[in-house]
Amino acid sequence: MRLACVFSSAAKSQNPIKTLFRRHRSLAVSALPIMADSEESLRRALSEKQAAVDAQAEAVRALKARPASAPSEIDAAVEALKALKVEAAAAARLLQAAVSRNGDGSTAGSREAFRQAVVNTLERRLFYIPSFKIYRGVAGLYDYGPPGCAVKSNVLAFWRQHFVLEENMLEVDCPCVTPEIVLKASGHVDKFTDLMVKDEKTGTCYRADHLLKDYCKEKLEKDLTLSAEKAAELKHILAVLDDLSADEVGAKIKEYGIAAPDTKNPLSDPYPFNLMFQTSIGPSGLSPGYMRPETAQGIFVNFKDLYYYNGNKLPFAAAQIGQAFRNEISPRQGLLRVREFTLAEIEHFVDPEDKTHPKFVDVSNLEFLMFPRKEQMAGESAKPMILGEAISKGTVNNETLGYFIGRVYLFLACLGIDKDRLRFRQHLPNEMAHYAADCWDAEIECSYGWIECVGIADRSAYDLRAHSEKSGVALVAHEKFSESREVEKLVIVPSKKELGLAFKGNQKMVVEALETMSEKEALKMRASLESKGEVDFHVCTLGKAVVITKNMVSISIEKKKEHQRVFTPSVIEPSFGIGRIIYCLFEHSFYTRPSKSEDEQLNVFRFPPLVAPIKCTVFPLIKTQKFDDVAKIIARSLTAAGISHIIDITGTSIGKRYARTDEIGVPFAITVDSTNSVTIRERDSKEQIRVSIDEVAKVVKEVTDGQSTWADIMWRYPAHAASLVDEE
Amino acid sequence: MRLACVFSSAAKSQNPIKTLFRRHRSLAVSALPIMADSEESLRRALSEKQAAVDAQAEAVRALKARPASAPSEIDAAVEALKALKVEAAAAARLLQAAVSRNGDGSTAGSREAFRQAVVNTLERRLFYIPSFKIYRGVAGLYDYGPPGCAVKSNVLAFWRQHFVLEENMLEVDCPCVTPEIVLKASGHVDKFTDLMVKDEKTGTCYRADHLLKDYCKEKLEKDLTLSAEKAAELKHILAVLDDLSADEVGAKIKEYGIAAPDTKNPLSDPYPFNLMFQTSIGPSGLSPGYMRPETAQGIFVNFKDLYYYNGNKLPFAAAQIGQAFRNEISPRQGLLRVREFTLAEIEHFVDPEDKTHPKFVDVSNLEFLMFPRKEQMAGESAKPMILGEAISKGTVNNETLGYFIGRVYLFLACLGIDKDRLRFRQHLPNEMAHYAADCWDAEIECSYGWIECVGIADRSAYDLRAHSEKSGVALVAHEKFSESREVEKLVIVPSKKELGLAFKGNQKMVVEALETMSEKEALKMRASLESKGEVDFHVCTLGKAVVITKNMVSISIEKKKEHQRVFTPSVIEPSFGIGRIIYCLFEHSFYTRPSKSEDEQLNVFRFPPLVAPIKCTVFPLIKTQKFDDVAKIIARSLTAAGISHIIDITGTSIGKRYARTDEIGVPFAITVDSTNSVTIRERDSKEQIRVSIDEVAKVVKEVTDGQSTWADIMWRYPAHAASLVDEE
Repeated sequence: MRLACVFSSAAKSQNPIKTLFRRHRSLAVSALPIMADSEESLRRALSEKQAAVDAQAEAVRALKARPASAPSEIDAAVEALKALKVEAAAAARLLQAAVSRNGDGSTAGSREAFRQAVVNTLERRLFYIPSFKIYRGVAGLYDYGPPGCAVKSNVLAFWRQHFVLEENMLEVDCPCVTPEIVLKASGHVDKFTDLMVKDEKTGTCYRADHLLKDYCKEKLEKDLTLSAEKAAELKHILAVLDDLSADEVGAKIKEYGIAAPDTKNPLSDPYPFNLMFQTSIGPSGLSPGYMRPETAQGIFVNFKDLYYYNGNKLPFAAAQIGQAFRNEISPRQGLLRVREFTLAEIEHFVDPEDKTHPKFVDVSNLEFLMFPRKEQMAGESAKPMILGEAISKGTVNNETLGYFIGRVYLFLACLGIDKDRLRFRQHLPNEMAHYAADCWDAEIECSYGWIECVGIADRSAYDLRAHSEKSGVALVAHEKFSESREVEKLVIVPSKKELGLAFKGNQKMVVEALETMSEKEALKMRASLESKGEVDFHVCTLGKAVVITKNMVSISIEKKKEHQRVFTPSVIEPSFGIGRIIYCLFEHSFYTRPSKSEDEQLNVFRFPPLVAPIKCTVFPLIKTQKFDDVAKIIARSLTAAGISHIIDITGTSIGKRYARTDEIGVPFAITVDSTNSVTIRERDSKEQIRVSIDEVAKVVKEVTDGQSTWADIMWRYPAHAASLVDEE
Repeated sequence: MRLACVFSSAAKSQNPIKTLFRRHRSLAVSALPIMADSEESLRRALSEKQAAVDAQAEAVRALKARPASAPSEIDAAVEALKALKVEAAAAARLLQAAVSRNGDGSTAGSREAFRQAVVNTLERRLFYIPSFKIYRGVAGLYDYGPPGCAVKSNVLAFWRQHFVLEENMLEVDCPCVTPEIVLKASGHVDKFTDLMVKDEKTGTCYRADHLLKDYCKEKLEKDLTLSAEKAAELKHILAVLDDLSADEVGAKIKEYGIAAPDTKNPLSDPYPFNLMFQTSIGPSGLSPGYMRPETAQGIFVNFKDLYYYNGNKLPFAAAQIGQAFRNEISPRQGLLRVREFTLAEIEHFVDPEDKTHPKFVDVSNLEFLMFPRKEQMAGESAKPMILGEAISKGTVNNETLGYFIGRVYLFLACLGIDKDRLRFRQHLPNEMAHYAADCWDAEIECSYGWIECVGIADRSAYDLRAHSEKSGVALVAHEKFSESREVEKLVIVPSKKELGLAFKGNQKMVVEALETMSEKEALKMRASLESKGEVDFHVCTLGKAVVITKNMVSISIEKKKEHQRVFTPSVIEPSFGIGRIIYCLFEHSFYTRPSKSEDEQLNVFRFPPLVAPIKCTVFPLIKTQKFDDVAKIIARSLTAAGISHIIDITGTSIGKRYARTDEIGVPFAITVDSTNSVTIRERDSKEQIRVSIDEVAKVVKEVTDGQSTWADIMWRYPAHAASLVDEE
């Protein structure tokens, strides 16, 4: 693999911590590890032009210094220099455009302007609010205001319906406060860290990888004199950023002379900072605890009870929705990297020998953007693939993993995520934990780039094994055989007497090491003992090799009758970052359109009714008691039908009232313009129909519940031609 | 007030911390402060009998010691002694029965047996699980397993519908991690404490009030020789336990010789322990934070934005559902006192001068058990009252508070809480914060006694003022006058020159103290200055009084035109302990019935369909492919209709399958006994009807959504006579 040559990637690839939502910092780059040809050739062209300019300038100077030079000769050389400078400037402009352009041709500037428009609307309409704003807030903490909170609870309700109800999952609800031992077992206490550096004078903390990343990106974008070789080096660092050890990051920070961004003071060496919020459980101060960094552990520790609850049958899935906490060193990117967030996680437990899925046929014909490892390594881009083919070709490891990829695709599409800006990206080998069978991320493209929003991983038996070992409680499944089977079993019997004589106080450690050999090791030892009579044997707990002779251990294969198979199930884990999905949904749903008077742009969120924070508004056309009364009757019928709505009886123009609610994505507006029938207006088409007052709640319910589309409804009820006055 | 005479209650009554869910420890007693007459007379009778026994025993001894005593005389005296002993024993039995009996005649023993039956079923069927059980758990932390989690999410969905949707409340969602300054302002950092004592040798921590309470209760229940006076003293301590200072509790612990329960070692003096889980925000370690102890503060700090969102109009309500955290010293009572729990809180902001509610008429005719202050003080019990009368008589402070009491009653009744074991208890004056206008708790009776499950408090302007002061951001509302009004305004103008001459460096503090005088103080000062020319004035920031003369300050009342009124809204806060409501619901829903074979009791939860964890089961009557296929078709139609269900194709007898699902409260069971129609069985009546396969999902949806009752359905479809085999 081309990327692994410069830095050792051993340090992190054994890290058991799931990398979900901790990794997207370098995704956009690692997904495109090779410098685009055009950019490389532009850099070479620019440096050639620059060299030509320098040479010509030198020539001009030399001509001028020589008394014999003819003025016409000098003029010609100066003209040539000017022409070369124009060429160099043009090459610089081309390169500048290339480095600041995205895949879709948009520039960083246009993306930021778009984001600003969305974020302004979101903040002004209270979709979200920086938490504790009156106290000047806390970085990385946000409140959902009324429309944001409603969108979130709609997304979660749909998640429950689409996953939990559809698959009869066992949903659980575990506390956030978690004792240390649980997170020791999962590996979070030791390894859930980011590298931190401190300003040596002020003590301000920074994420070391962020500083290195910012340096590289800025150089690449702004320093046009960078050689193609140097540019390749910086791009490579961006690609392998997550694999760098503390020493490697520290060395690069020193080499590039990176200083504290705010003060330009020197920085400390990088050191790991644990990202969990620590606390203490109970009054003694002796029981350390943490706020959970993910919800999954609550499911793993309950495996035994849940398996029993499911009638001791596999496969089954457990699910949990809840808060998770990560004490980020320096949160940025608004709602995308926060210190507290809602996760929705599924742990689907399955027999490792049978990962087929009976409902895979339901999703096998789906076609969407997939970005397998091979295409990433080759510098290609994501392509539409048919899911069934991705399984049959072995691109996706197994059917159950594939089934969830398909279900996640359907979930995101139903919410209103743009299918063209959604791709499933397979983890590269250096991103994946050593035990994982296969991992795919649902990535959504927004103004920050491709953002990892759902991780779908086959984590094999890792998590259950870790908790079995730490707790001493076997987290296993049983397969009862209808008839008992004869199986071959490895039997290792160390001779304690001989070992005691040979190793004295170390006897116990040697015995343990012998007993825990894998089948392969044991058979190799048996072969050596038979051929040579003795063998060198490395004992980890002693830190050295000892010599084992034939009389010290008996290794044999015995045939046994077994009535059941006992095994640790594999787990397939789809894990959803709800806040990230919602933020991307905000960007994908946002558009502007000119007002009738064309003096301003009106903002609209085109949320599908399923996620719209409020389904419907009720407006009396003009301020009069009889219309207000009708509006109240309609509001009551909407409440009875369980449809969230707002009623606006201010005298403001109807056009302004439409604009106000388009801006929070309300799909339908009921306007009361008579005492027996009303109009219903659809947000995006602005089409209107006329419906009787008795029917209006039923019609709105039908179309917000998804039983009918707006097109169906349009066909059944008379259209109402909106007067020009309606939409100012 | 009779109770306040022994101990000062000043210490705690100024505590701004809401006492919700921190107080029920003494409720059952404080609600019945006066010793029941019968018990007092029984204690007196017993001690008289005991005195008579002692006197007669002495007489017998004297007779036996005297040589002249006739044997017959001695025999007669011994007989009399025996008779007196029999009488004393009878009196002791009567007293014992009286002290161990509850109001309803149940004994502590029968209540505990019932609780054990409920809890066994809940734990066995995974309604809840002690968290991190494989690591031997953590006190006060519980997981909801699949049926418990489903009940919880049904309760929360109904809460959203009944409160948020019905009243168009502004729901928000704020983080649990909270910076210190917010909880400084709310008072939690300084005052959210319990008194703790430590075993002086082992360091084990106990709640001081629990130890004192346990001592008093045990003495009262078990020591029959207690004098009526002593018994009254102990009962009084139980009644005022929450008002005792650390010194008072410490003195009582010493006086009664209370030792550490586990070791009998001596105890430390009591000291306050803060109940918040502390943590640190960000990597510097310099920003202390806490896990929020309630969700309300997140709403208060957003008041300004929410008021704007509501079009700068009052009244409006904001709501929040979320986790709250309390690091209890020694959690007990299972799900009722835990370290992490879900709160659902409403903050209804209202003009303090107008607390009427337009929808009060909708609840004014409701009649339910209310327990006003007066009845509690008089030792009476809760009585049914009509809500409208409670308002018109002034028992409940205002209509808005009354409206929410009525809505809370309807909410709990719809969930399935038994109306006869639900009462609304008004806070006694010593329970209420000084600023509160009125507080009522919805208390539900369960095996632990009357448990406070919802607090409904008119907290006046306290919370918004506290955050206004601390943050410097005015959290106020405006009432625009249609015409400007002339108002009298106090104007205080300190003469900085004169004050500077007189007080030099202290001038600034004197100026500030003068400017912040209340109207009353200022008018008093003006009167004194006019009559005497000078006045003593205490300046807090100087810690002493200074002399103010007439030329130093001008105080006048000026008439001004005002266009609006600016004021701090009052807040009415209904706050729901979701876990407590659910636990009480479990107890109220649980019953047993004999199995057909009468050899065992079958457990049933009679949850209404609204809260039932699973709405419906599907059972093929016998194991055959064609019934299994029908069952799968029905399961798909149920999923499409959004009805949670389980399908059980094990060959177990149909009676066992019914019993298994009755035990988790599934209201309807569909049994597939043919390929064109099926039976639906209702859980509690065990009645069955026959419905065609095409209709079954629609019928179940109708009756679980509450559009029809089971009685309606019974009337429309043919009854199916269950064979004896069906329910074994």
